[in-house]
Amino acid sequence: MTNLLQSDIEKFVAIAHRLADAASNQTLAHFRAHGLTTDNKQMGPGFDPVTEADRGAEAAMRAILAEERPDDGVFGEEEARTHGTSGLTWVLDPIDGTRAFISGVPLWGTLIALDDGAQGRIGVIEQPYLRERLTGVTGTQNAAYLDRPEGRIPLSVRACQALSEATMITTDPFLFADDEWSAFQALREHVRLIRYGTDCYGYALLAMGQVDLVVETGLQAYDIASHVPLITAAGGIVTAWDGGDCRWGGQVVAAASAEVHAQALEILAPFAQSPVAAKA
Amino acid sequence: MTNLLQSDIEKFVAIAHRLADAASNQTLAHFRAHGLTTDNKQMGPGFDPVTEADRGAEAAMRAILAEERPDDGVFGEEEARTHGTSGLTWVLDPIDGTRAFISGVPLWGTLIALDDGAQGRIGVIEQPYLRERLTGVTGTQNAAYLDRPEGRIPLSVRACQALSEATMITTDPFLFADDEWSAFQALREHVRLIRYGTDCYGYALLAMGQVDLVVETGLQAYDIASHVPLITAAGGIVTAWDGGDCRWGGQVVAAASAEVHAQALEILAPFAQSPVAAKA
Repeated sequence: MTNLLQSDIEKFVAIAHRLADAASNQTLAHFRAHGLTTDNKQMGPGFDPVTEADRGAEAAMRAILAEERPDDGVFGEEEARTHGTSGLTWVLDPIDGTRAFISGVPLWGTLIALDDGAQGRIGVIEQPYLRERLTGVTGTQNAAYLDRPEGRIPLSVRACQALSEATMITTDPFLFADDEWSAFQALREHVRLIRYGTDCYGYALLAMGQVDLVVETGLQAYDIASHVPLITAAGGIVTAWDGGDCRWGGQVVAAASAEVHAQALEILAPFAQSPVAAKA
Repeated sequence: MTNLLQSDIEKFVAIAHRLADAASNQTLAHFRAHGLTTDNKQMGPGFDPVTEADRGAEAAMRAILAEERPDDGVFGEEEARTHGTSGLTWVLDPIDGTRAFISGVPLWGTLIALDDGAQGRIGVIEQPYLRERLTGVTGTQNAAYLDRPEGRIPLSVRACQALSEATMITTDPFLFADDEWSAFQALREHVRLIRYGTDCYGYALLAMGQVDLVVETGLQAYDIASHVPLITAAGGIVTAWDGGDCRWGGQVVAAASAEVHAQALEILAPFAQSPVAAKA
């Protein structure tokens, strides 16, 4: 863990916003463009589109970091991880929700996080088509906010006390494999309302106080790194299905309150896989 | 069927746009507002939120029609249907996707259609948070367009030739009941990519040329009336699962091309329910 002064954090938040700006220039230029080039990153039967926008946005962010923070590590989706010497790692997902992106659905996002080796300190979700940028900074007051063209709005989760009153979100129910399908069906029976198709935007809605629970599986570190500091700063809780650290991915549950989190964990914990070994 | 002159159509399109403006004033004022009042319209265990925004938007649209088109019928979600004497019916869904609305997801929409007794002539999808309004007019050239703050963009579906290359959209897979679940699973195996959680916005994405196929069931007339003229005007096809007229609801398949439509119908037709009796 690296000790950071408040003045350091402010400087890093400013860099994170520059990264978001640079990524948006790349992503918006390609969103809903016809003739979008997609490769198939997997050699198997799965369909995993990678767009020029994805690569361009990560390259643009890495160029800024190479100049401003040459000693920090960078862990992005598209290029090889670098470890750095400062103890700080920038975790980048240039486009979370590439399937949404290539379908024209404006719920993808650029995810930016700063990890100090022990925990995430800064998390940003950038959705440029909606002109929404959510930022969360752990350990600081009033540290979660939404930037919109009309101004900056403080973010906080809402006070949902019971799973039976909760609105839940997940991207695709068929991503719950094997035993996880049982856990998902149990959640479906317990929550008030469930919505699909959100990718990173489900976590944004939780931080905005619009929904109460996000449950997903099979995440990579760059899919979740930004959400932990963001949702924590907004007053929520993000863990693995067994209640442990989830910042390196796997099975994730994010909740608006301790009560909803505990009730979801009762259902999810029996289906928790062995914790992912910390890769920090 | 009522014969309409081009000048009539232009006048009605202008009225439809006034309706969309009036609805947006109501819906945007309540979208993501805290303390949103939701009733439970069904007495059963289902959860069907009805918001003040829903009722306010329909009332605002009906007030304009009462003044401008007192002899036309009005068929809306919230208030009793009126039949009128002109042979024309305005079909209104103030908020399609109320569950999206109360979850903060900006993929709900206000749906406005004008039906001449034989077919839909005008269809509008209004998404005010995205500042997107899609309009389609049947029987007119260049008659599908998207209004955005930066201008008016012509709309057309994309030329997808095969189901195996298609991106499919549906709102919630668990809305496919009994036998329909088999049809849905067969589609999942055949399409390239599937997205969820879109409500009316899936049809908007089809008209924009971003996706190739929307398949749904259990729709009401006001859920689909605007989409038939819109997607037809954009070059696509919208029918019931048996290939028949779907403008009064039920099982709906909307496709970007005749090829994708035919291939989807091969899978869907065996699961088609008896056609809904025309209620016009």
